[in-house]
Amino acid sequence: MNHALATGTRIRKSPFFARTVAAGMTHVTVYNHMMMPTSYGDPEGEYWRLIEEVALWDVAVERQVELAGPDAAALAQALVPRDMAACRVGQGKYAPLCDHAGRLLNDPVLLKLADDRFWLSIADSDVLWWARAVAAERGLNVEVTEPDVSPLAIQGPKAEAVARDLFGDWVSSLKYFWFRETTLDGIPLVVARSGWSKQGGFELYLMDGAQGGALWDRVWEAGQPHGIGPGAPNPTERIESALLSYGSDTDDRTNPYEVRLGDYVDLSIKPDFIGKAALRRIAQEGPRRLQVGLFLEGEPIAGNQERWAVHDEGRSVGVVTAATRSPRLERNIALALIERESAAEATELTVETANGPRRAEVTSLPFC
Amino acid sequence: MNHALATGTRIRKSPFFARTVAAGMTHVTVYNHMMMPTSYGDPEGEYWRLIEEVALWDVAVERQVELAGPDAAALAQALVPRDMAACRVGQGKYAPLCDHAGRLLNDPVLLKLADDRFWLSIADSDVLWWARAVAAERGLNVEVTEPDVSPLAIQGPKAEAVARDLFGDWVSSLKYFWFRETTLDGIPLVVARSGWSKQGGFELYLMDGAQGGALWDRVWEAGQPHGIGPGAPNPTERIESALLSYGSDTDDRTNPYEVRLGDYVDLSIKPDFIGKAALRRIAQEGPRRLQVGLFLEGEPIAGNQERWAVHDEGRSVGVVTAATRSPRLERNIALALIERESAAEATELTVETANGPRRAEVTSLPFC
Repeated sequence: MNHALATGTRIRKSPFFARTVAAGMTHVTVYNHMMMPTSYGDPEGEYWRLIEEVALWDVAVERQVELAGPDAAALAQALVPRDMAACRVGQGKYAPLCDHAGRLLNDPVLLKLADDRFWLSIADSDVLWWARAVAAERGLNVEVTEPDVSPLAIQGPKAEAVARDLFGDWVSSLKYFWFRETTLDGIPLVVARSGWSKQGGFELYLMDGAQGGALWDRVWEAGQPHGIGPGAPNPTERIESALLSYGSDTDDRTNPYEVRLGDYVDLSIKPDFIGKAALRRIAQEGPRRLQVGLFLEGEPIAGNQERWAVHDEGRSVGVVTAATRSPRLERNIALALIERESAAEATELTVETANGPRRAEVTSLPFC
Repeated sequence: MNHALATGTRIRKSPFFARTVAAGMTHVTVYNHMMMPTSYGDPEGEYWRLIEEVALWDVAVERQVELAGPDAAALAQALVPRDMAACRVGQGKYAPLCDHAGRLLNDPVLLKLADDRFWLSIADSDVLWWARAVAAERGLNVEVTEPDVSPLAIQGPKAEAVARDLFGDWVSSLKYFWFRETTLDGIPLVVARSGWSKQGGFELYLMDGAQGGALWDRVWEAGQPHGIGPGAPNPTERIESALLSYGSDTDDRTNPYEVRLGDYVDLSIKPDFIGKAALRRIAQEGPRRLQVGLFLEGEPIAGNQERWAVHDEGRSVGVVTAATRSPRLERNIALALIERESAAEATELTVETANGPRRAEVTSLPFC
């Protein structure tokens, strides 16, 4: 069931928009009040291109919330449950942002550009206003803005070869989530080893929206020998890889421990971050729900449009948040958020799919 | 240029979704992380139905942010630049929500349900996290949640007749933005005289998402004698009526005085609301930009997909945020946000539309 997206000026367009249209974009979504391509009409080909070659993704919707000024580091540490003292300039850190009750409100990558300047590269919620509220209520001397920065991703096993051709051999020495500021034909960029897949790759944070077409063309051209083609964050690959999709896999009361982000919460650090007391209590008691993998029996399934109820011996214990057919495993797989008591590996459950019940078995994550 | 909206569980569906599909929904948008119908394939018919008869709108995307508890009133007054002491139970107030710098972050209607319970019926930004940040940073004893509440609107000159048939004659005594809690065939509702048009009407705040289909059917049936049909917030009517579209007409630095919302900011009230000092300064100095109406010369125009630059004797002075052809005026009209110096009525400007420059003349708002 397809509905056309009606757009106006409220839903912003990416600096790469004209190029994605020219490349044959067929499906879009809206993310951070902005349009994002999700398919170019060949879902299977786009999947295998990501797994085997290299795909070019317009992910300008990953907006940056910039913290800049004398108290920027203090604000970053207030927002982020990780040890910012251990974060160096040029380093990025994946961070579950929580509210004071420990509820997840975003899962950005934090980039430390300077001792007094940070970006939060955000998922789909208005972190801009959240950060402004905290900064102002605490009287911090910091500017919180959304700068003119739009990431373009190259993802897949051949992405590194493309990045080397574009930028030089130094990109191979970049560690995961680390980045460097540079230029390409005069286009100002941050180049990071990152991206929302587990196939490897880079994100090029374009720092001048007027040069979106020029950047796209340059990367496209450099990618030709490596089989580059258009793509988008891939719902099947991300389920296989068990990457969290904020808003898809989470609800209004999700905490990091429920969705396997406990390793990104450091309760030992001294300056209190927001949510620390609540998160300590949850860590001690253990979360009530857990995100698990499920194998679903039977014929290949299509992706879910709604959350599907999960039953354990007739009792409702949670929901499937995302389901797909895995081409690599040739099995039906799903991410589910269910009660801890039903989350042990090999537990047998029933999933109420859109086309009737399916038997399912709990498995560990990631799938691939 | 139409692109299909790819949906999953991140973009939520309305309790009325199945009914809107059955009614022939063709176009959608995404608003507050939720899908909203924008057209049923007959834009002209939908416009005239709103102007002359009555239209049924799924506006479940107007999510409620509920403030409940001993400090709910204190939080409401902190967030809202209006005198909450003068707001009675059963009364609603349109309110520009601003940050500490006076920047507009939403323009909800606040509904006072009880002395310790309020809803903010919001436009497209995450007020939930904003309100939670303020509440927690101030240590207020208040729960901030998004309840299971989804408005369904009836709008147009015959909406009152439909509402009387549904609820009784008492609806005619409801003043604008006032509301009453009631039930319809056991379906719990708040009925308010409100809605995002100037054609008159009501919003039925459904308080049980499981009964969306039942409510839709009941209103549909009652509306038949009055010519009801499906519709959606109408981009042409709202420009004619000069209703603000947050995110379309505003940017990251818009303040209420720029967009004709100064009357909804009460600088005289005693308990300080957020942004009061900044707003007082802006009020004293006068805003640098103003939202004005423009008549655009020449052939009928289509709606704008991008902001169009506005020039005054060759100098860039702002942007058209929304443009349309007015069927009632048979003229091209637009809302523009431009420098104050160019905003006087009858000033002649040039608008750089997608199809070339057009001469334009400043006029007062609303158009109709």
